[in-house]
Amino acid sequence: MINEKNVQLGKVRSSIRELFEYGKKRKAEIGAENVFDFSLGNPSVPAPPEVNAALKEIIDTCDPVVLHGYTSAQGDYGVRKTVADHINARFKTSLDADCIYMTCGAAASLTITLNALLNPGDEVITFAPYFPEYKVFCENAGGKLITAGCEDGTFQIDFEKFERALSPKTKAVIVNSPNNPSGVVYSEKSMIFLGQLLKKHSEKYKTPVFLISDEPYRELTFEKDVTVPYIMDFYDYSIVCYSYSKSLSLPGERIGYIAVNNKMPCFNDVYAGVCGAGRALGFVCAPNLFQQLIKKVYDKTSDISVYKRNRDRLYSALTEYGYTVVKPDGAFYMFVKALEPDAKAFAERAKEYELLIVAGDDFGCKGYVRIAYCVAPETIERALPSFKRLYESYKK
Amino acid sequence: MINEKNVQLGKVRSSIRELFEYGKKRKAEIGAENVFDFSLGNPSVPAPPEVNAALKEIIDTCDPVVLHGYTSAQGDYGVRKTVADHINARFKTSLDADCIYMTCGAAASLTITLNALLNPGDEVITFAPYFPEYKVFCENAGGKLITAGCEDGTFQIDFEKFERALSPKTKAVIVNSPNNPSGVVYSEKSMIFLGQLLKKHSEKYKTPVFLISDEPYRELTFEKDVTVPYIMDFYDYSIVCYSYSKSLSLPGERIGYIAVNNKMPCFNDVYAGVCGAGRALGFVCAPNLFQQLIKKVYDKTSDISVYKRNRDRLYSALTEYGYTVVKPDGAFYMFVKALEPDAKAFAERAKEYELLIVAGDDFGCKGYVRIAYCVAPETIERALPSFKRLYESYKK
Repeated sequence: MINEKNVQLGKVRSSIRELFEYGKKRKAEIGAENVFDFSLGNPSVPAPPEVNAALKEIIDTCDPVVLHGYTSAQGDYGVRKTVADHINARFKTSLDADCIYMTCGAAASLTITLNALLNPGDEVITFAPYFPEYKVFCENAGGKLITAGCEDGTFQIDFEKFERALSPKTKAVIVNSPNNPSGVVYSEKSMIFLGQLLKKHSEKYKTPVFLISDEPYRELTFEKDVTVPYIMDFYDYSIVCYSYSKSLSLPGERIGYIAVNNKMPCFNDVYAGVCGAGRALGFVCAPNLFQQLIKKVYDKTSDISVYKRNRDRLYSALTEYGYTVVKPDGAFYMFVKALEPDAKAFAERAKEYELLIVAGDDFGCKGYVRIAYCVAPETIERALPSFKRLYESYKK
Repeated sequence: MINEKNVQLGKVRSSIRELFEYGKKRKAEIGAENVFDFSLGNPSVPAPPEVNAALKEIIDTCDPVVLHGYTSAQGDYGVRKTVADHINARFKTSLDADCIYMTCGAAASLTITLNALLNPGDEVITFAPYFPEYKVFCENAGGKLITAGCEDGTFQIDFEKFERALSPKTKAVIVNSPNNPSGVVYSEKSMIFLGQLLKKHSEKYKTPVFLISDEPYRELTFEKDVTVPYIMDFYDYSIVCYSYSKSLSLPGERIGYIAVNNKMPCFNDVYAGVCGAGRALGFVCAPNLFQQLIKKVYDKTSDISVYKRNRDRLYSALTEYGYTVVKPDGAFYMFVKALEPDAKAFAERAKEYELLIVAGDDFGCKGYVRIAYCVAPETIERALPSFKRLYESYKK
């Protein structure tokens, strides 16, 4: 009677959320310190002190009618100028304020972008493993998500599989690097080659394929020699969907942006489509106080070193125990090979050791589990004996 | 090639926005004090001091990981409990926290609700004059907006016209009282009768028609004897889309809620549909800091007396000059009969007197203009001679 698709989306929680809810219950039963909850990508490191200081300064010094008032739909001009200048300072772009559209975080950036681009029946390709809400967002925008598997073990793009996924209906490709759930950063070589393939495909079918980069984890890399390639440097029909949720530990405040590459010939239409889609979806404008905040802390991050320490400790311990682990270059997720073919059964068995980890099946990739290690370092330390015992239980 | 509908929505500004942009340009030419801009419903009264005090207190006292972290998708439990309790204290409802879904303001409340309810081809009726974005929101949700005219002069619901608009395809009716743009408050008698009609229609076609109340202006009434009827008191299949934008002068911060009446038999499905639609549209959760703010200032408003003073001054002056004015009981809009049949031509002529007012055509109602009097009282005072001269120009 009412919209059955949305009723089902509301009723059926994602398995990640299910596991998180199970964890809450289990913690009440046996004590929070005895449950090792690696289910959710919720930052455990607080926002940097500059965030709260800036919020209070803005509140104290701005005219409240202006501060709490509407900004233009695409966002405050000064904020957009700051964002564009910061991108230009880091990459080979020449964006201006009118290439930027401020949003309520990465999810909004994606739904707005997909609604701007897609017509009914259009296909969007992404690389598995992938963030499962991509499917929900694509379908709401009238499109269909097609997944292309990655190279087993490295989880870099597998171009043979990707070429098989391309079709005349392909309207866009979503990349997410550093990747949730694998933690892998796609190499510059891969991104250049991806751009060349898309260019060839676009020319063949005389209609551009857009490359969308979902970037909530861009700032979360742990080695000096790991850089996350910027898609606008390699491909003109490119759109960056950025969020400050993880880099500034502000996931509940919903602030991010869409950057549309001004090198694409149809830039004016695409940017207008973004404005129109934001309007039709009911976004009006991104929260003004958090827009003003970004003007002040655009180049700060929370203390990423905690995630690096967690990664190093967990990676060395798990490999020592005998696990096969994809070494993550970024984000705060680790992808580990399950010790039996069915990763769901493996994740179930991990629960017996109070380890809450998510089967890769939920990310479109069987045989692996995701460990979200954005937890307190003590949690890692206390969880290690359980990981050891879980491993040993398979070797008996 | 890309989504043409959203491109057009992004390119074609609403006439209200066009007029506002003209005003900015005109102010630069002849000085802001010489342009009388009544185009936008942007509150001129600051948020009450409790807002900034509470924001700073929350920032100072909450754990930043919790404060800036995700809430559940429907909103923080304590916040939803506060909202439900406050509604129950004012009206004949028994809502609990799980009837409330926190949103990024009224536009988000409406898009989420419409996406939860509508299937392709469903019709939504509203009463003209009406907020023009309703059409955009309905169409994005796959529905069609049908308008029913009001009684000329009073702008109360005209039930004959409404019955003609009803059809087997009617899925929902949107009411907006106090009304933008007329300022009219629909009477209790009207709301009771509307509920009876919808009940009869629902029984006839064996499928409920939902009544959606869009309530950004609920708190903006000016007389003790004017009360805004609460639809849940009269009709079970009812959903309230509320916003704090105007009552607390926070339009740029995007905070509001959806309240689903728990008396409707299909409550569980409708609430799940709301959760699913919020997820599919990319809302994730309403900004956490502003959710926490509402817990502290849910019963405050900015200084509404300024709008009352503006209304009284403007109403008495315009009627004295000879204008025919619909006396507004609430919101901060005044609907005035144009002095020639074509209200657009009248609004154009008003520009010659530096008066920026919007033709009713844009609200689905010809022959009238809307004056947004949420301006500084001095602006009203200085504008009055222009209104007088405009009137006289028609009597020559």
